[in-house]
Amino acid sequence: MNKPNIAILGATGVVGREILKVMEELDIPFNNLKLLSSARSAGKEMEFKGKIYKVEEAKPESFEEVNICLASAGGSTSLSLAPEAVKKGCVFIDNSSAFRMDKDIPLVIVGVNDEDLKLHKGIIANPNCSTSQLMLVLKPLDDFAKIKRLIVSTYQSVSGAGIAAINELTENTKAALDEKTFENKVFKKPIAFNVIPQIDSFLENGYTKEEMKVVNETKKILHLSQSLPITCTAVRVPVYRGHSEAVTIEFENEITPKKAKELLKNAYGIEVIDNIENYEYPTPIDAAYKNPVYVGRIRKDLAFENAISLWCVADNLLIGAALNTVRIAQKVISMNLY
Amino acid sequence: MNKPNIAILGATGVVGREILKVMEELDIPFNNLKLLSSARSAGKEMEFKGKIYKVEEAKPESFEEVNICLASAGGSTSLSLAPEAVKKGCVFIDNSSAFRMDKDIPLVIVGVNDEDLKLHKGIIANPNCSTSQLMLVLKPLDDFAKIKRLIVSTYQSVSGAGIAAINELTENTKAALDEKTFENKVFKKPIAFNVIPQIDSFLENGYTKEEMKVVNETKKILHLSQSLPITCTAVRVPVYRGHSEAVTIEFENEITPKKAKELLKNAYGIEVIDNIENYEYPTPIDAAYKNPVYVGRIRKDLAFENAISLWCVADNLLIGAALNTVRIAQKVISMNLY
Repeated sequence: MNKPNIAILGATGVVGREILKVMEELDIPFNNLKLLSSARSAGKEMEFKGKIYKVEEAKPESFEEVNICLASAGGSTSLSLAPEAVKKGCVFIDNSSAFRMDKDIPLVIVGVNDEDLKLHKGIIANPNCSTSQLMLVLKPLDDFAKIKRLIVSTYQSVSGAGIAAINELTENTKAALDEKTFENKVFKKPIAFNVIPQIDSFLENGYTKEEMKVVNETKKILHLSQSLPITCTAVRVPVYRGHSEAVTIEFENEITPKKAKELLKNAYGIEVIDNIENYEYPTPIDAAYKNPVYVGRIRKDLAFENAISLWCVADNLLIGAALNTVRIAQKVISMNLY
Repeated sequence: MNKPNIAILGATGVVGREILKVMEELDIPFNNLKLLSSARSAGKEMEFKGKIYKVEEAKPESFEEVNICLASAGGSTSLSLAPEAVKKGCVFIDNSSAFRMDKDIPLVIVGVNDEDLKLHKGIIANPNCSTSQLMLVLKPLDDFAKIKRLIVSTYQSVSGAGIAAINELTENTKAALDEKTFENKVFKKPIAFNVIPQIDSFLENGYTKEEMKVVNETKKILHLSQSLPITCTAVRVPVYRGHSEAVTIEFENEITPKKAKELLKNAYGIEVIDNIENYEYPTPIDAAYKNPVYVGRIRKDLAFENAISLWCVADNLLIGAALNTVRIAQKVISMNLY
């Protein structure tokens, strides 16, 4: 089999840079590599596997001869460029929310619903960060005991909002420590020494887009009923990297915490850190720059007959974005779907 | 009526200092004031209403002639000194967890279950911080639609863990910004740019004491059935002051978000900040140093037929500790219960 020609769209962004690191780590085979960006970042030079690449401005014609594009350039760029890429025979793996809920486009977490990749018609969507880590946790539990209801509260790091957000946390924190005033630009409220119960914009039902992504993407990826009750509160916390989630899952069938722990220990992409006697549970700092989704505090939930509560933490830029994108590319290559 | 003689036990601590501020703010009438502390802090001088007081070491005999003691000195101190104070005719209002679940001791949030004060036999307990703010929110909703189930995730500031914890957040943050190593002493994990899913120690059922305080104290204060299902995940966040809570409440009877908002707007001790069109919702920085419990993001919950989700934020040192303690003292005086 010939190795694919690969393009990275949004190569200079926070997620684009992570995609390159993960491509090297997973040793993704490729023939030719093209780094694409907006006009603003075009011309920059980036190194990959010891070779220097000049970043090119992304245009429709950029996708000539490209077999697979890993894109993380925002919704409007994806909306305009994905159809152009597909026309040229490119498989477009998209990190934005533009195509996720399109019923003809697979939304995939590798290790959860790989089979859906076979249904692709050119575009494959990568789920939202807060959904992604949860899917790897829920899949083995759903297989065993069938999810009946889901309640999620998130503790999300700033890196999901890009480089400017990361810098704002640093600058705001320094200003706060020095008791200086600081004007927030990325966030609607101070993010230093504060938490903000808003991620993305609000919808008519009073939920944010981020919260409804968890609700809707979860149902699509796990092939759950549209009427399955899921609720979410998404909160930004002053953490650089790593999203945490407090999750309560009610099940149709009986499941003990011991069984849940055993299932999770054997599940793809999961590492259980759950030894409360020794204060062992995951936190964002433990999860940053690492591939697994970490799960701890697995316990019988007190609000339902058949339920488990747990705490899961993962690097939002990896499993929540770059890692799963590259894993999809890896599957597309190994399943010969390009 | 004679004004009472008042003692503050733990006057030099984080909460003790707040109690003095609130006493001045609420203009609590008193005849004589005594500031008490451990041997270590005895001898310090503190100002109250323009007068200098020398802090005395708390001993059984300290409570002679004291009518009301406001105590925030930790569980073991309260356990040893409260009975001594009561023997001498003093009403002992205690901030520690020592007596909260004792069925003969009222656990009171003023504005919620004031009538329980009449049952006191000398000791009155002040609820845990994370419970306190929630009670003022739940009371009007329970009165209207009867709570059936409760799911709480907390985002708790470090000040609940005392002065050393406040300093540790500052020092850890500075070290992290300077990329220096830092050894945490108060917290089991780094608190700077991190979140920690543990507050207080773990119990056999896999929950922390903090989480079970929310579960058990809520039932006691609102006079709910012991079997009413409540679950909680308590998480420490890098915030100095102000606890936040993501709360999902299922009700027996129908209640709309509009009705919930109206009930909360008219409720004691609550301020509704809920205008998502203008990004108006409470955050800890908004709530710090203020008396109300702030409520926002009031919305129909998606996981149940009859349910509301909301976000509440309050100053954990005020309504969560000092403010309610002083309000209890105020009620004890006005209801002539000393």
